[in-house]
Amino acid sequence: MNNYLIEKGKRAKEAAAKLSLLQSDIKNKALCAIADNLVGNAAYIVDENKKDLDRAVENNIPTAMLDRLLLNTQRIEQMAEGIRHIAALPDPVGEVAEMVKRPNGLLIGKTRVPLGVIGIIYESRPNVTADAAALCIKAGNAVILRGGSEAINSNIAIVNVMCQAGENAGLPVGTIGLIDDTSRETVSKFMKLNDYIDVLIPRGGAGLIKAVIENATIPVIETGTGNCHVYTEQSADLQMAKNITVNAKVSRPSVCNAAETLLVDRAVAKEFLPDVLTELISKGVEIRGCPETLEIFPSAKSATDDDRATEYNDYILAVKVVDNIDHAIAHIAKYGTKHSEAIITTNYNMSQKFLAEVDAAAVYVNASTRFTDGFEFGFGAEIGISTQKLHARGPMGLKELTTIKYIIYGNGQIR
Amino acid sequence: MNNYLIEKGKRAKEAAAKLSLLQSDIKNKALCAIADNLVGNAAYIVDENKKDLDRAVENNIPTAMLDRLLLNTQRIEQMAEGIRHIAALPDPVGEVAEMVKRPNGLLIGKTRVPLGVIGIIYESRPNVTADAAALCIKAGNAVILRGGSEAINSNIAIVNVMCQAGENAGLPVGTIGLIDDTSRETVSKFMKLNDYIDVLIPRGGAGLIKAVIENATIPVIETGTGNCHVYTEQSADLQMAKNITVNAKVSRPSVCNAAETLLVDRAVAKEFLPDVLTELISKGVEIRGCPETLEIFPSAKSATDDDRATEYNDYILAVKVVDNIDHAIAHIAKYGTKHSEAIITTNYNMSQKFLAEVDAAAVYVNASTRFTDGFEFGFGAEIGISTQKLHARGPMGLKELTTIKYIIYGNGQIR
Repeated sequence: MNNYLIEKGKRAKEAAAKLSLLQSDIKNKALCAIADNLVGNAAYIVDENKKDLDRAVENNIPTAMLDRLLLNTQRIEQMAEGIRHIAALPDPVGEVAEMVKRPNGLLIGKTRVPLGVIGIIYESRPNVTADAAALCIKAGNAVILRGGSEAINSNIAIVNVMCQAGENAGLPVGTIGLIDDTSRETVSKFMKLNDYIDVLIPRGGAGLIKAVIENATIPVIETGTGNCHVYTEQSADLQMAKNITVNAKVSRPSVCNAAETLLVDRAVAKEFLPDVLTELISKGVEIRGCPETLEIFPSAKSATDDDRATEYNDYILAVKVVDNIDHAIAHIAKYGTKHSEAIITTNYNMSQKFLAEVDAAAVYVNASTRFTDGFEFGFGAEIGISTQKLHARGPMGLKELTTIKYIIYGNGQIR
Repeated sequence: MNNYLIEKGKRAKEAAAKLSLLQSDIKNKALCAIADNLVGNAAYIVDENKKDLDRAVENNIPTAMLDRLLLNTQRIEQMAEGIRHIAALPDPVGEVAEMVKRPNGLLIGKTRVPLGVIGIIYESRPNVTADAAALCIKAGNAVILRGGSEAINSNIAIVNVMCQAGENAGLPVGTIGLIDDTSRETVSKFMKLNDYIDVLIPRGGAGLIKAVIENATIPVIETGTGNCHVYTEQSADLQMAKNITVNAKVSRPSVCNAAETLLVDRAVAKEFLPDVLTELISKGVEIRGCPETLEIFPSAKSATDDDRATEYNDYILAVKVVDNIDHAIAHIAKYGTKHSEAIITTNYNMSQKFLAEVDAAAVYVNASTRFTDGFEFGFGAEIGISTQKLHARGPMGLKELTTIKYIIYGNGQIR
């Protein structure tokens, strides 16, 4: 078992050394070849995916999960399109920044280099396989994928098709590795493969991410959980506050940048809540309110302390009336997950206070939390949203899949 | 026990929220007050340090370690001077970079913010207590220190003196915390205090760092171990190669950026080795050579495979004759610790190849590895040298003790 992992690790590490030196045009051509090959082998991938789906049906997997697992020609074409888009993005590797001449004549600069080998641990959606691998390759990294056991046949098929095309187009053997032994014991050892893997990125639900953080010895970038708040401050344009609250909740409730709690200043709660909550209920949202909310809007359900801390990812919204901005900021500090937080206000001082005092990856004034996303931020792609503070915070694009190396030009300097 | 740690964590987290908003001039004045108070209370600190020294003597601690533990008036003045220097550096917090206007009118920028609460786990040198705390504070962070049990009385005294002056000068209560229960069980729980500590930085020997990496669930910045190489390529100016090799080995053998192995191209080994190795021996260095080295220079001892992988931190140098640059790069990839690596060459292509292909925090052409240092790089201060690839690589100054926060100015945007 250990040998199995070490072998995967060695191949990836060797590939990473070559990949870090590969010119952009070779990487880009390889990515386009991979995209073409995925489309060309769609029937094979769909057949293999069918095996996973059949087994899932046998195991009485819920319908929502079956849909996550499903691949069809259209979805495979979307995967390919995503890869072509990544190929067309600028290559972050090789730029040299902040080069300085030191008093002793040394010329010291930072050059952007790939991270090396990136491990991705994810759950059932097989499109992550293609998407994550393409992002890693574009940034010059080798990747070792460990997807969920439910999608193993799909993942093997996708990786086969990608490797075949990629290696023909000049990617080193070992660029894309797959842990096809999906046992718990193997994943646990995978997270401790420090000699071969530089960074681990978990993608999935809170349980998966917690397990990786607790067990990994490889440096981890924590992604994902978003208990996001929209705070309507008393000076807010209430029509804007309503639009943003509704958008942040219902435009896509299943994603991490969706709002889970509405906070509102007491001074405007009576005017604001009936209007916005009626609208939300008409869109199918269940309201769970604090006692004051229930007084103002009796058709809300009563919220528990759990509600304040929950990322519903669903058509449910917690609502709390607060005294003022300090109360709102304290609530966010206590229950938030440092993802995305928004204030709606027309007061300059309140906007600056909220931006300064709220500790989160993305802090908004008068905009929906739904914008926390690599595409919306202009990165062109995204591998996840970091909710920790090391290395990358917020949406992670290609640049966040690289590190720096100091290069020093001397002419005999000693110390 | 858990309550003890949670109490420390809560205090630090509350302090961090206030510290992140503190103006530079208040932080700077507080640091200067701390420096003054350390000097003013030197007698008390020396007395407490005496207790640690007496116990160390009773326990037959080696002399070199006694010296690390020792504090006297001069050393306390040096600590204070270091803190005043940190106070005078520019504050990294608050700068806003890369602000862009998106097509939908959102203005998105990155503002530099403190990491929050930083945990430092270190060994016997009590000067780290003052130094690390001052760096964390300057960058707007609260700090929880966990020093070695050998230095506990010294550390308690230093933290008392720092807290007293710091809080009088406006630092929030809880800015500097000390884990004064130095039991193994407590440090193990300390490394898992994810709700209160944002980043853990171990400072010390390889054993300490390994233990932190294996046990922590808090994100760790790995520092330190340096198995650094100087590679004399066949086109090298051999006088320069000799100067740099000798400097990299003997100017301060105990530090992580000292060279541990000399690699030399076969084509110049006969000319180069007798000269440089004679010089090194005259400086008290023991030479451990590969078989070819022994043939050329019989007074060398025979190197084992362990020698290639060892950070001696001592007057010992491993020597290996290599075929060419590819052989040298492969050796470094196998045995190096991704810290600092140098090539001595007059050949342009060789210099560029080495810079591109060697994977380390700092890669040098024609200069000593000894320059990998925050002061030498112009950062003005250093909390350690990162040998991992996430967040920071190489010397870490004040900027590396911060993270970013996206701030977004909108006017009602929804998605």
